[in-house]
This record gives sequence, C-alpha cells and structure tokens, in this order.
Amino acid sequence: MRSTMMDAPLQVARILEHGATVHGTAEVVTWTGAEPRRMTYAEVGRDAARLAHGLRAECGVTGDERVATFMWNNNEHLVAYFAVPSMGAVLHTLNLRLFPDQVAYIANHAEDRVVLVDTTLIPLLARAIGQMTTVRHVVVVGGGDPAPLVEAAGDRITVHTWDALLAGRPDTYDWPEVDERDAAALCYTSGTTGNPKGVAYSHRSIYLHSLQVCMPEGFGLAPTDRELAIVPMFHAMSWGLPFAAFLSGASLIMPDRFLQAAPIAEMIAAERPTLAGAVPTIWTDLLAYLDNHDVDTSSLTEVIVGGSACPPALMHAFADRHDIRVIHAWGMTEMSPLGSVSRPPAGVTGEEAWRYRYTQGRIPAGVQARIVGPAGEPLPADGTSVGELEVRGPWVTARYVGDGTPDEEKFRDGWLRTGDVGMLSPDGYITLTDRAKDVIKSGGEWISSVELENALMGHPAVLEACVVGVPDERWDERPLATVVVREGATVTAEELRDFLSTSVARWQLPERWAFIDAVPKTSVGKFDKKVVRSRYAEGELTVKELAGP
Amino acid sequence: MRSTMMDAPLQVARILEHGATVHGTAEVVTWTGAEPRRMTYAEVGRDAARLAHGLRAECGVTGDERVATFMWNNNEHLVAYFAVPSMGAVLHTLNLRLFPDQVAYIANHAEDRVVLVDTTLIPLLARAIGQMTTVRHVVVVGGGDPAPLVEAAGDRITVHTWDALLAGRPDTYDWPEVDERDAAALCYTSGTTGNPKGVAYSHRSIYLHSLQVCMPEGFGLAPTDRELAIVPMFHAMSWGLPFAAFLSGASLIMPDRFLQAAPIAEMIAAERPTLAGAVPTIWTDLLAYLDNHDVDTSSLTEVIVGGSACPPALMHAFADRHDIRVIHAWGMTEMSPLGSVSRPPAGVTGEEAWRYRYTQGRIPAGVQARIVGPAGEPLPADGTSVGELEVRGPWVTARYVGDGTPDEEKFRDGWLRTGDVGMLSPDGYITLTDRAKDVIKSGGEWISSVELENALMGHPAVLEACVVGVPDERWDERPLATVVVREGATVTAEELRDFLSTSVARWQLPERWAFIDAVPKTSVGKFDKKVVRSRYAEGELTVKELAGP
Ligand SMILES: Nc1ncnc2c1ncn2[C@@H]1O[C@H](COP(=O)(O)O)[C@@H](O)[C@H]1O
Repeated sequence: MRSTMMDAPLQVARILEHGATVHGTAEVVTWTGAEPRRMTYAEVGRDAARLAHGLRAECGVTGDERVATFMWNNNEHLVAYFAVPSMGAVLHTLNLRLFPDQVAYIANHAEDRVVLVDTTLIPLLARAIGQMTTVRHVVVVGGGDPAPLVEAAGDRITVHTWDALLAGRPDTYDWPEVDERDAAALCYTSGTTGNPKGVAYSHRSIYLHSLQVCMPEGFGLAPTDRELAIVPMFHAMSWGLPFAAFLSGASLIMPDRFLQAAPIAEMIAAERPTLAGAVPTIWTDLLAYLDNHDVDTSSLTEVIVGGSACPPALMHAFADRHDIRVIHAWGMTEMSPLGSVSRPPAGVTGEEAWRYRYTQGRIPAGVQARIVGPAGEPLPADGTSVGELEVRGPWVTARYVGDGTPDEEKFRDGWLRTGDVGMLSPDGYITLTDRAKDVIKSGGEWISSVELENALMGHPAVLEACVVGVPDERWDERPLATVVVREGATVTAEELRDFLSTSVARWQLPERWAFIDAVPKTSVGKFDKKVVRSRYAEGELTVKELAGP
Repeated sequence: MRSTMMDAPLQVARILEHGATVHGTAEVVTWTGAEPRRMTYAEVGRDAARLAHGLRAECGVTGDERVATFMWNNNEHLVAYFAVPSMGAVLHTLNLRLFPDQVAYIANHAEDRVVLVDTTLIPLLARAIGQMTTVRHVVVVGGGDPAPLVEAAGDRITVHTWDALLAGRPDTYDWPEVDERDAAALCYTSGTTGNPKGVAYSHRSIYLHSLQVCMPEGFGLAPTDRELAIVPMFHAMSWGLPFAAFLSGASLIMPDRFLQAAPIAEMIAAERPTLAGAVPTIWTDLLAYLDNHDVDTSSLTEVIVGGSACPPALMHAFADRHDIRVIHAWGMTEMSPLGSVSRPPAGVTGEEAWRYRYTQGRIPAGVQARIVGPAGEPLPADGTSVGELEVRGPWVTARYVGDGTPDEEKFRDGWLRTGDVGMLSPDGYITLTDRAKDVIKSGGEWISSVELENALMGHPAVLEACVVGVPDERWDERPLATVVVREGATVTAEELRDFLSTSVARWQLPERWAFIDAVPKTSVGKFDKKVVRSRYAEGELTVKELAGP
C-alpha cells in the first residue's frame, strides 16, 4: 500500500530557505583580528542567491558541476556552502593543509571547474593551481591581488572577485528541485596511505545528518545557541554545523584563520558562544592558555571534542577549572561525519557517568554499528569483545568517488569498515582502543596506543603524548612514548613510567621514551603517527631506553 | 553526479531496533488505577517480535495487510505500534470515540483484516463489528470475555487472546527492508462533514516527523525525559510520541482509560513525568483540579497543548500557579500531525515572549507554509495578511486514501489547504484566527470565534466558552457566545460583554448569550461547533439577547 504523503525531497535549498526566513535574524560572525564581520542568515540567503546567479552567469556553472572552495571558516564560505548545492551543483571543500600536489590531485579527480579562494590563501593556491587541469574560474574573496594565480595557471583560468560576481544580482534564486540522492558536496579524506579518496554527500544525507546534529542527544542546537565552529569547513563539512545551524536557528561564530589559543580565547570572551566544536589539540592548547590568562568563558557551557580520542584529563580539567562540559564525539569523513556523541544514559551520575563520558559515545538511530573479529565474524555487542568497528546508515558512504564497486579493504557486505578497533556496549556506546593500524602488537598481545596516551596525558607535567608501535627484536613491536612537557614543568621518563604503572599493566609499560617539542599533526589536526614512526626509524629522535618487560 | 551514500531506508523497524537496544532500559508505564504495569523498551522490542510472529502464524497477516487497533494508550498498543509497521503490514488506529457505524465504515474502507481490542472496549467494538465486513481476526488484550464480539460477528471472525498469540514465539524477528514511501500506518480524520477520510503515513514520514518531534525546537525529547502521552494513540498517532520516544530514549507514561483530572493528577505525582501532551480541554480540567487539590507536579516542567487553540489564560494560570510551562502547538491528522510549536525566538522576553507563545507556533524546516486569499492568491508572510493557511512537506499528506486525484477542496497545486484561517509572520510564526468554516461573517467583515473565546476564557468566572456564528437578518451572521461558568462562580451576560469590550472591538461584541453545562466535544476532544449551531437552530438553548452593534 502506497502512503498518501507528499513526495517532498530532502534538499539543501530547503535548509537554506528555512534558515534565511524563519531564522533570518540569526547571525554568522567572522573573526578578523579587528572588528568582526557580521551577516544575518537572511543576508546569507540573499548572498547565496547572488552567488548562484554569478556562478551561472560568469562561470557558466550548470548541472552538477563541481565548485571548489579553498577557504577558512568565514561568512563567504558559509554562503558558498548553501549556494552551490542549492543550485544543483556540487560543493567541493579543498583541504588547504594538504601538499600542493595532493590538492591538485583531488581537484582533478573531482573535476573541479571553479575555485573560490580566500585572499590570504592565494599564495597557497598558487602552488597547486598550475596542476589543476579542469579549473577554469577562480573567484577571489576579499579583494587580494590574484597575480600569483594568473602567473601559475596562465590564461586557462579567468579570475573574478567575489564582490563583482555578486554585484547587481537578484536577491532570490528559483532553486531547482533535486533528486535527494544526488551529490550535494564532496570531501576527500586525507588518507594516510595512498591517494586521498572522495566521499560524495547527498542532499538526503546532509539533511538527515543535520537533524541528528540538532537533536538533544546530538549537539542539541537551538536558536538561543551560538556555536563557535572551529572545526574546519574543509574537514568533514565542519561536522555539519553550518547546515545544522540553519535548520535550528543557532548562530555561528567563525574563526577564519585565527586558530591559535589566544584569538580563540578572545572570540569566546567577545562573541559569547554557548557551544563549540574542535579536535582535542585545539582544546589542549586553549586549556593551557585559559589556565594562564584571565578569560571570561562564562557563556560557554559545552564543547564537543572529536576527530581523535579525547584524553579524560582534558575533560576533567575543563570541568574543574573552567566549568565547561567537554562532550566526546566520534566520526569520520566517510560518515558525514557524526557517528556517536558521549552523553551518559539517564539516571547515571558520578564516577559511572564519567566512565560513559570517556567513551566515544552512543550511536543515534541513523547509525548502526557492529564489532567484527579478525576473520570477519560479527562479535557480540557486550562491551568487552574487541574488534574492528563497522557502521552503516543513511549518512554513511557506501564507496569512494569513482569506484565502480566498493573497495574491499574499506567495505564489507554493505558495512563501512571504520579502521577503528574497540568495543560496543549493549546500550550502544562505542569505546575505541585504537586505529587498527596503530594498535601495538607486542608478543601476540595488543596494546592500545590511545590508552597509554590518555594515561600519560593525565600527568600534570604532560601537555601531549603520542605513542606508536616500533619494531622490537624480541616482541615484534613495542610502544614508543613521545612526550611534550608542559611549559615550565619538568619530568623524567622514569617518573612517567612509574606514574603509568599505577593504571597500566606492567607488560604494556613503554621502555622507549622521547621528549619532543610538539606532536606532528595531520592536515586536520590529528596526531600524525606515520611521521612519528618515520622520525624514529630515521634516528631523528633522542630516545631514552628503560628496562623492558 | 550520484552521491556515494548508502541507500538505507528510513523505516519504523529501525526506530524499534534503536529504542529496544540503545534505549533498552527506558520504560513504558501504563496506569491501571492500581499498580501500574511497566515494560522496558527492550521488552517492547521482544513483544513486538512475538506479536509479529503471532500475527503471521495465527492471523495470516502478510504483505501490506491492515491490522487495526481499538485501544487506549497502553503498553500493548505501543507494542502494536511497532510490530505492525515493522513487519511490513499497516497499522490502523481506530478512533473509539466515533459512532459504531463510522468505525465500521472506516474499518471497511481500510479493509482491516485484524482488530486488536482492549478488554474494556469489547462492548464498544461489539456494536460495530457486525458491520466490519473485512475483519477476520480479533485479538483481545487483557483476558476479557469475547462473547459479545462473537455474538455480533458470528463465525466470520476468529478470536485470539493477546497472551496466547505471543506465547512461545521467538524474541526476535527478521524485520524486512521496506520501501520507505510505503504505508506504515493509517489514520482517519473525524471530518465534521461527510465521511471520515484516511491518511496513510509512510515509514519515511514517520521517521522524519519523529526526528522533528525530538528536536529542541519541537518537544525536545531526551533520555532523561518521561513523557505523559495523554493525546490518544488513535488520534494522529498520539502526535508521534511513541516513535519519538524510541528514537530519543525518553520514557513513556500511558493513561489507558484514566483520562479524568483526578487520575491524571495522581499519575503526575506518582510517575513524575517531565513532559506531557494533550488537547486544551484536558488541561482546563486538570487546572481546575490542581487549583483545588494538593498535588505534587514538581517533576513536570512543560506541557504541550494542541489540537485546538490554547487559551492564553490557561498558559498564564499554569505558569503562575503551578510553575508549568504550557507550550502551544498546532497540527493536523493530515500532517502527522506536527505543524508548529510555539517557542519564542532567541532573545525575546517578557510580554513580547508571551505574544509569541500565544501564537500557534513556528514552523520547522520540514513544513513550508503560506497564506492564501479568497481567490487562491498567495498573500505575503507579513504577519498581518489574513487568509487560509496552506502547507506542504515530507510528512504532509498529498491526498486521502482511495482518492485517485487529490480532492480539490483540500489540496491546491501540491499544497494541503488546512481549512485554518490566520496569518504567517516573516519569521515563520503561525497565528490562527479561526477555522475557515467557523469564521463569523458579519456584514462583510470577519469575526474570529477563537479570539472571542480566548478573551472570554480570560474571565475568572468562565470555565469554557464556545462562540459560533448564527444567522442574523441584518448582518448575515453574528456571534453567539455559549459559556460554562466555573463551579461556585456567578456571572451575567452583561458583565461578560463589558469584560470583553476592554479587549474586543465594539462591533464584534456578541449580543446573543447562552449559559450551558458543558461545551459539546468531538471524538478527539475539540469543541463541536456543529452541535452548538444545531442546538441553537433547534431552539434547545436558552438565549439572552443584549443590544446589537
Ligand atoms: N572521538 C574519537 N576517538 C578516537 N578516534 C577518533 C575520534 N573521532 C575521530 N577519530 C578518528 O578519526 C577517524 C576519522 O578521520 P577523519 O575522516 O579524518 O575525520 C576515525 O576513524 C577515528 O580513527
């Protein structure tokens, strides 16, 4: 029996129209170092229409052509987020932290036709654009000199300015009805091996994912919220926050290129966000800053931390010293990215609640999860069986862009293999112990690098700790602990090992220790363990060896 | 460009599985007058599997056959809500307040094959089942004597008991993957003219609607909530609360047949709901009860009031005297039913916030609304233009069950004509002034019956007031005010008219007044204006006439 319901597609244009009218007075604020730039959502709606008209008229964008962005989190990026998918084209957010040839590879793979670039990023784009063979138009946001781009790409590209492209265009656009399963946006994962791989989000997946982000069990966005969106718009759609904000009416605060602790602290004091989202390293830096400066963070009640495991010590420090609730979340580019958010179950308090909050979080109805053993056999969701986590659902990718059939390394029987290893509890909480490739295989037993890191980061003298497996004659692999000591503090390897021994089994205690200035990070701010391993292999680290197990 | 996202259908079985596992310890509680009956969501999941197996094995339910319920809000009804759509069949909630021949008409129109009936409702069903020509199986919940049913229907039907049907069945069911646009549930509107008309909700519409119900701007459901679901499960899917509860992990409190103020007050004190939902008349009764009895309502922070216009006086009384926030919501069976929820915009306080809260509320992204003038011309959403409200969206019906093409009286160019008259503000707030058919046309001008009612119900001596248009020689139509006086109070027509004249234009003041014992109500608890008009026409009311305009 067919239902009698209307056949209304879930599409980005609907989110835009809703935000720009019903929540027309909500605002997006971009930090500039000086006076912030502000726009209402009604103005974002107007500029999205103008941009779409401009892209069609001046850059000939039609159908599902790809329009790329090479931009920080700012007002214009937000306008592009809505304009491009709403007009039926495909938004491609380029990761500006990648090497130029990676960026070019991605742009070519996606067949990008237009690139929107922030003035401050012209020099960076200039290093890649020569190799971007499909790009025909560049739109410069912010009035900078495009000469380096023209020099690099010659007359293959036409350069426009954002202001001229939008000037005099109509304030509305008759957004087409789309097939909700068509691509709305593209994001490439900064894979640590091989070439980057693309994921094409659909209008449907973006819409459903945005609803989940807004849910009380998600980030709980409401019109009274002001969300500081630090997580880059070029990384997994900034966790879907731009779309969720327009759905819910929450205002947005955008850091642009000011991602250091000092300006972020200033933004918090001045713009009074209620919520914020970023990777752990940003919060680690900010915590150190807040501990040493008098900053009014009273507006901020909750920060979402994801992208890497959130050290429990970080959660406690924010709670105890700054009255800010750190909520742990887990996701991947391949899942739009929200997989789980760690709010404890109803009625659970005290130590037990904290134990829930350390986990990667609870899955929503839109995500199904299972744990799979080494031979591909599903393991019980009993909270103790350890295996690879697999997921599926309407905002999870089924394959990578351009692949005829799903890559067997990454997909199994309709499930995405996350490459994350851990447990699933009967009530849907995920606890990750490691990335599959970062697990340390010591004498046939597994050691979780993340557990060692979390324990180490609980020591007051440790700012950051990154643990990797390194080759060992006797045990195959053993942990190497690399540690960044907090400014003004001192600590020895022996002291740290003794500290660890109170919470970690003896045979798991690292014997190799290196004190380093900073943990190398990937393009999206995660610990880059590949680099740590290769530095070790090249003998670039000063390693202290204690007695082994 | 196709997206790479998985093709995961939105389906009721997914909501069930999520609730029964991730929120397996949440509970549903059914009031019994004595010890309440409790089930966890895990047990609901188990019983849903058992019921599905029983329906298939004993009643031969296959494909999209219709399984009807003739039940109060209780545990078993909740089990049926999930089992029937999850197995691919269609749940049909019969309205037990209708006349027997209407119930039979609806069951025949839907071609119901099975009816699940509460023991206490056997006598009522017995009056209709003789005419239900497609029904073959009746399942009695609660162990009552089915003799009256067999007497009425003869051996056309086989009678089962709930317990026997479920006994020994497997605890799990391999729920089929469905087309998300297929029917999951049927509900007929108790139209005030003509035969009832059916709406077939899809798996997709139920899923999307449930997400909206859970949103902070919707009812804001979270695992810490306990929702007292007074709104009948046979009326517009109990506002989608059962599904939303399983999505969000909120617990449910079900009143069964105990819908009077005294037991509801008892339920609140004993089961400590945080939220509740019902039509205004229930709250009016409860308010009177709470004002005269010492009841602990401290758990209850918010009640959603919809189904009819919520008198502002009711909101203020609950806020002032019981510290309970009354949130006004608007919807229709044809829209699943949620259309709008009245939470004031961010930053608005005091009197202005109250003015927002009096409105029918703000539309979510899933609902588009417009105001249309008498000639079918769209009017601006400027907050002042008055016309018929039209809506569309993924959980709005496009037609009625069995209609080849949409009924032109109710649908226009892909929009549902709500039959409600009012205004739409630029920021998406709907203010209804009347039902199109209840607007009083006085000398070419419109008088809103609802405005007069709300003003009258602001008088301390007035319990309820129902205003209808009655024929008038000179003005075509004029308002007749029928008033129920609060117990122990006295008031005259002159006093009420003087009271009204402080807030209502002189020419709108009713000259005809009748004091009545109770306002007649429809099967779903709304003022039945058709009955009031006919009582007046038949001369059954004692009418006092004051001077006209
Ligand atoms: N809360 C978290 N805890 C541990 N690992 C995480 C967390 N969030 C994200 N990740 C890791 O980041 C990966 C996704 O990377 P990306 O697609 O770049 O966002 C996941 O597969 C995890 O390995």
